Amino acid sequence: MATGKALAGPFHPVKGVRTATVSAGIRYQNRPDIVLIELAADTRVAGVFTRNAFCAAPVIVAKEHLDAMQGIARYFLINAGNANAGTGDRGMADARYCCEAVAREADVRNAEVLPFSTGVIGERLPVDRVVAGIRQAMPLLDEDAWLPAAKGIMTTDTRPKLHSVQVDIDGRTVTLTGMCKGSGMVRPDMATMLAYIFTDVGLNQPDLQALLNSAVEHSFNRITVDGDTSTNDCCMLAATGRSGVHLTPREEPQWRAFSKALHELMQTLAVSVIRDAEGASKFVTVDVQEGADADECLKVAYTIAESPLVKTALTASDPNWGRILAAVGRAGLHNLDIDKVAIYLDDVCIVENGGTAAAYTEAAGQAVMNREDITITVKLARGKAHETVWTADMSEEYIRINASYRS
Amino acid sequence: MATGKALAGPFHPVKGVRTATVSAGIRYQNRPDIVLIELAADTRVAGVFTRNAFCAAPVIVAKEHLDAMQGIARYFLINAGNANAGTGDRGMADARYCCEAVAREADVRNAEVLPFSTGVIGERLPVDRVVAGIRQAMPLLDEDAWLPAAKGIMTTDTRPKLHSVQVDIDGRTVTLTGMCKGSGMVRPDMATMLAYIFTDVGLNQPDLQALLNSAVEHSFNRITVDGDTSTNDCCMLAATGRSGVHLTPREEPQWRAFSKALHELMQTLAVSVIRDAEGASKFVTVDVQEGADADECLKVAYTIAESPLVKTALTASDPNWGRILAAVGRAGLHNLDIDKVAIYLDDVCIVENGGTAAAYTEAAGQAVMNREDITITVKLARGKAHETVWTADMSEEYIRINASYRS
Repeated sequence: MATGKALAGPFHPVKGVRTATVSAGIRYQNRPDIVLIELAADTRVAGVFTRNAFCAAPVIVAKEHLDAMQGIARYFLINAGNANAGTGDRGMADARYCCEAVAREADVRNAEVLPFSTGVIGERLPVDRVVAGIRQAMPLLDEDAWLPAAKGIMTTDTRPKLHSVQVDIDGRTVTLTGMCKGSGMVRPDMATMLAYIFTDVGLNQPDLQALLNSAVEHSFNRITVDGDTSTNDCCMLAATGRSGVHLTPREEPQWRAFSKALHELMQTLAVSVIRDAEGASKFVTVDVQEGADADECLKVAYTIAESPLVKTALTASDPNWGRILAAVGRAGLHNLDIDKVAIYLDDVCIVENGGTAAAYTEAAGQAVMNREDITITVKLARGKAHETVWTADMSEEYIRINASYRS
Repeated sequence: MATGKALAGPFHPVKGVRTATVSAGIRYQNRPDIVLIELAADTRVAGVFTRNAFCAAPVIVAKEHLDAMQGIARYFLINAGNANAGTGDRGMADARYCCEAVAREADVRNAEVLPFSTGVIGERLPVDRVVAGIRQAMPLLDEDAWLPAAKGIMTTDTRPKLHSVQVDIDGRTVTLTGMCKGSGMVRPDMATMLAYIFTDVGLNQPDLQALLNSAVEHSFNRITVDGDTSTNDCCMLAATGRSGVHLTPREEPQWRAFSKALHELMQTLAVSVIRDAEGASKFVTVDVQEGADADECLKVAYTIAESPLVKTALTASDPNWGRILAAVGRAGLHNLDIDKVAIYLDDVCIVENGGTAAAYTEAAGQAVMNREDITITVKLARGKAHETVWTADMSEEYIRINASYRS
């Protein structure tokens, strides 16, 4: 299941970026599972990575390489089917070995290759198959092969997640194209499962990192499927500079236009993860307003978004707002005055003054719950902070998927 | 579904306690839903209550009455089918009205009656039916009617939860008998859904409250079904003194014997909630050892116990330990050295030195996962703290129950 429509093109290529996707039999046969991405010389790369303490070997190696090269990289090597997580020292050696294989084939330095893995945790990466895949992929690198790449990084995803935004800067059109994967074990913390954003704008690395940090905070760091932060989350932003447009924060209007386009692209991709959440039949926006600070808004929003009881009521299209109220109440806010809290389903006020809203009718609540896209709004009456989190319902299909798939 | 066996008698009556259970049609017809419990004069009562900010009207009234009478009470009035939560000022008035009805019938003070409600949130309590139920119940009060009372407080529970412990103090047998209900929306915070413990020992109220606080902390406050703390949680301990045995902390060996019996009784009841968790097919003990303090042990234990991915792997009997490792990693422990963490399924070591244990085999892991009762042990190698939490798996039946039942 999934909600809404799949992202549709056009997907614009990014000057200075080529991709190749092959089937290397990492976990399954005849299914694309190796994606190689080549970046033009001097491309600047920024990244944010999972905060899970058990962070996977490729995440550690990618961070090391990015540091060693001060944010310059030439290749992303991505495999699906095996996360190379929980694999100890052997996993580290395996991740490095795969980078070396790319470096040898392409005649670049090891540290210019960044590895990424997604799939089952705790099994050794079949490096021979990865290396064979690299050799197969190298001659296939292509400027236009974006959709196969977006498909190649999928695991339980039912749809590729690929989106482009273009923006005019000083009369020149620049492109941002991104792809990501993820539909379960999704509660990104500084990043999502795997997301790759590319632009032909030129930026220096610290500026690129600042842009990425800001955009992640309001996109991939605001979605949750099941509260389970992955061991392998990475979000990478690469700027090739090949449009001829170079940007610094000093060029204010242009910087803002580009930043806005990046936020838009990343939010679209993040939302597409939730629309494709495992077993999803509802797309739910949790909007917490009038908080004392962002932190308490997020506490309330995540408590609602991750409550199994709220999620199952959504699955049933049941306007069982008592579960939302109970979630707000247990979110741990200090001195919450429940008599001032208001809760809405779309534009229908369900709770005010600590109890059912005077004008609320079950029919009005039911009409909202029958929709596929639902916004739950909580007004805390404690201040001016405001945060939004996106999530999905939890259906029997979520259980079936996760009781059969090994992540 | 449920795991293990239902609690079986003998259930010992407690001198000074009588119960009556009737069907008042609160939400469903022909199903017991009113339980009236009479306590002998001078019975001391201690209670712990939900910390959910949206705490229900009866919880607020019960706390007020207990305070006003300094821990003396004569009646517990419990209804199932309607939680009288999220009902605002009308709900408060309704809870008080029901207490008055008991007080009038029994000729006691309003504040000597403590009200408790469980069931659907956000609907008005049908007070006329409750009052009719009280009148019907009053002449039926009986010393031996414990099992009907334990059944009368059930909602989605599939089994009554009733247990007795007897202990000899100075050559006299004293009795502790308790009952509770709860199988979903269970992540008690200072109490469980509804639990009532009775003893014929005499204790002063501050001592009684101290005993209850300590016992709750290692029983009802260590279980979780879905992380959803209810709006109506209450755990009450009543001491009638009718055994003729009076206890104070100064009588050390006797005090310890009684305290141990109380802990045992409450842990048995708490575990019975998890064995009857909605849709449960596994009973899971999460044991976190070698933590720096209790708080971090509990963080890790609850992150594992409430992870939908760990729960669904348990449903599938899949030794997918990567999900346990990922949960440990995202529990938010500062400076966790993953290379020192060890994880066990029962006595099988699955993770050591940050990766798969050398001796681990899938067959050994599978053998444990096939069991109905499973212990997940995590050794953090950071100190000497140790905490245990009990939980269940999350099955398709959990979703079915919660997508159809209104809590």
